[in-house]
Amino acid sequence: MSTSLLDALRSVVGAAHVLTEGDLSAWQNDWRKRWHGKALAVVRPGSTDEVAAIVRACARHGVSIVPQGGNTGLVGGGVPDASGTQVLLSLGRLNRIRELDRANLTLVAEAGCVLQSVQEAADAAGLLFPLSLAAEGSCTIGGNLATNAGGTQVVRYGNARALCLGLELVTATGEVWHGLSGLRKDNTGYDLRDLFVGSEGTLGIITAATLALHPRPAAAMTALASAGSLEACVALLGLAHERLGPGLTGFEVMNGFSLALVARHMPQLRQPLAAASWTVLVELSDSEGEAHARERFEGLFGDALERGLIADAAVAETLAQSHTMWHLRESIPLAQAEEGLNIKHDIALPVSRIAAFCASTGAALERAVPGVRMVNFGHLGDGNLHYNAQAPEGGDAAAFLREREPEINRIVYDAVLAHAGSISAEHGIGVLKRDELPHYKDPTALALMRAVKRALDPQGLLNPGRVL
Amino acid sequence: MSTSLLDALRSVVGAAHVLTEGDLSAWQNDWRKRWHGKALAVVRPGSTDEVAAIVRACARHGVSIVPQGGNTGLVGGGVPDASGTQVLLSLGRLNRIRELDRANLTLVAEAGCVLQSVQEAADAAGLLFPLSLAAEGSCTIGGNLATNAGGTQVVRYGNARALCLGLELVTATGEVWHGLSGLRKDNTGYDLRDLFVGSEGTLGIITAATLALHPRPAAAMTALASAGSLEACVALLGLAHERLGPGLTGFEVMNGFSLALVARHMPQLRQPLAAASWTVLVELSDSEGEAHARERFEGLFGDALERGLIADAAVAETLAQSHTMWHLRESIPLAQAEEGLNIKHDIALPVSRIAAFCASTGAALERAVPGVRMVNFGHLGDGNLHYNAQAPEGGDAAAFLREREPEINRIVYDAVLAHAGSISAEHGIGVLKRDELPHYKDPTALALMRAVKRALDPQGLLNPGRVL
Repeated sequence: MSTSLLDALRSVVGAAHVLTEGDLSAWQNDWRKRWHGKALAVVRPGSTDEVAAIVRACARHGVSIVPQGGNTGLVGGGVPDASGTQVLLSLGRLNRIRELDRANLTLVAEAGCVLQSVQEAADAAGLLFPLSLAAEGSCTIGGNLATNAGGTQVVRYGNARALCLGLELVTATGEVWHGLSGLRKDNTGYDLRDLFVGSEGTLGIITAATLALHPRPAAAMTALASAGSLEACVALLGLAHERLGPGLTGFEVMNGFSLALVARHMPQLRQPLAAASWTVLVELSDSEGEAHARERFEGLFGDALERGLIADAAVAETLAQSHTMWHLRESIPLAQAEEGLNIKHDIALPVSRIAAFCASTGAALERAVPGVRMVNFGHLGDGNLHYNAQAPEGGDAAAFLREREPEINRIVYDAVLAHAGSISAEHGIGVLKRDELPHYKDPTALALMRAVKRALDPQGLLNPGRVL
Repeated sequence: MSTSLLDALRSVVGAAHVLTEGDLSAWQNDWRKRWHGKALAVVRPGSTDEVAAIVRACARHGVSIVPQGGNTGLVGGGVPDASGTQVLLSLGRLNRIRELDRANLTLVAEAGCVLQSVQEAADAAGLLFPLSLAAEGSCTIGGNLATNAGGTQVVRYGNARALCLGLELVTATGEVWHGLSGLRKDNTGYDLRDLFVGSEGTLGIITAATLALHPRPAAAMTALASAGSLEACVALLGLAHERLGPGLTGFEVMNGFSLALVARHMPQLRQPLAAASWTVLVELSDSEGEAHARERFEGLFGDALERGLIADAAVAETLAQSHTMWHLRESIPLAQAEEGLNIKHDIALPVSRIAAFCASTGAALERAVPGVRMVNFGHLGDGNLHYNAQAPEGGDAAAFLREREPEINRIVYDAVLAHAGSISAEHGIGVLKRDELPHYKDPTALALMRAVKRALDPQGLLNPGRVL
């Protein structure tokens, strides 16, 4: 059976694009090397019609398909299982930007376009594609949409979902939905686009998307501020909304230990502000220019100092200083890795409950693991924290991860549930959190999700065992 | 059977809230009196649990349900058919604002809350709920979400969909989905919220929603500008995006005949600018204040004059002048009604194709009906036109509507399809456009929609005959 399927796949995409031998680890393992899969074949289609033909061939043979973009996912959603029976469908060759429509503020990109290439195409036209995240140099738009990626500008521009106006997609039966709408208003039936966005390849295979572009701000400016408490950070966020309006395009927080780890492992990185309980990174985009942006920052921080919300602030004087500030923020995961293995959580909470959540959950974790060190940082503007637990100073990090993860996850996720939060803010479910989902998701929602899955993929061929 | 169902319904909501006699026209007819239905009963639940119990009772009896909010819809989606066998479920008593969370910028409103009351609740907290449309004094949030309402600020804030973070909903089997999330990031499975938003009551019954609020701008300012062509209006829109960024919160166009009708039927309304081929209404929201807003407007229009995009411009000096400008725009449908019956279209197009669409479609309509007068106005910022055909001067309007509607619809909708547009931008499908949909919607999308409907409402009890 598998031979005749492989022959069918070769006749669709050409033998050169059906890989069964040699080192396939780039597709079979995730980049963090947490999952080690084995595919029946890695298939690399060159067109949407080829994707559809692959799906039809697999459906005839009852063989399941794992779609993959840049393979930068964090939850094991894009690598095959170890059975050797799944087709790994790599979208990497679908990498054309088909069209940029300046008047309509849209761009049509194929699924395999690297995010950064989309950003660059928009920039070359004097426009902005605001989706921005650490993996932007290698993740692809198809994966960004399949996982509804978040990143650093969600407070202003929304998640990947909010930046997608239309899709071209191959269904589980190998039909093509030509839904590359460039419309901002279209009420002709159910919102299929948003159903597929974030479904992690389990309902259909995205082959291209119409993306919404924004006017490019005349200036973007970065600042750091130090605060004594998370409550103060939340109050500063409210003030920033009030004073900057939609100019507020980024609002990140880093707890003291996060930046202490950066100082320990990357001593070459200058930290503009003295150590504090919390450091906030604020990004302001301005449609008038740098001088105007600076004035507005000064107004915000002057007000915040007066109200006692912050102890100090530093506004970047140059683009280089701005990059340095972002670099500090982006170095936390690496500094944390240098410190040793740790237990990661990607959670979201209502902004109004974050401080109470951190206080009570931090205390519960300390009771469970005296001396546990919390690396707590993230996108406060949209309520998303990367709330990671590091072993006590001098402890065995590997043993900590191995032995304490279930218990710590339970404490964190139960507290998230109690505070009306989410156990996966921006990374998705994949295989990593699939078995957690039934504990933390509304049972009616789960039943609806299962009904949708059965309706759109009755054979269960698309990325089985992911999400549900 | 119907007696035992009525008894069951009475036991759920109380006899006073099961209406079967007297004048039920307020629920059975739409407000434009295009559809005249007859319900088995009008049922007015007072809680989400009562809605669920009603649905279960109807499901046991195989009786279908038509949910209704403020009954301001334009496509017949919220009134019962004439069979006398459908239960009209009015959500009007579910009208509490349950919570306003200032730090999280959210508000939880029950489905029957009138839109204006939600706007006012946000305003009282110093915040903005930006959904705004002509029916805001009587339409309800449940209906706004069920139809994914649009309105005048979509260019900046998106449709109703973009302002909804979570739902509480009763499924077709009478289960309650407790999905009132106040999270801006939540990737724990399929996007059920957006599946129900815009589904016109055919997949589930929205009982409450968590709505996203925005910081309230320090100033909002309105201006009119006159232009010689639609191409110039599109160019002005691009310039406004560039110069105003997210400060651009409204961009409406009105063709010369639209304002001529207003002048004819509402001569008391002052028109600040001389008659022109096109008049643009621009709304600017500013987070700094009125003086700053005025400066930005002056910059925009100075630039536009220099480039020859506009002939003249008038910036409102007072709030009253601003209201007058909006009033002109909002008076067009009434002026048109005074002129006589007409053939309406609510269409969307990529902004880049609007001018070409109007040129070729206008010519085709003129060939079909020499002297036809186009009332062409709408939300150019999001590509949405109300593209209405009025009988030739002195013609019989009633006969025009009766005899020419199918032909004119065909010309307009075929042109919309050819220009990658939508035959329903913001009003929905309902019964009005249900039979058009198969001609104009991608067949794969239709098949997916039908599969979703079967999966979530296998008995076909929720608003049957609408959308699909």
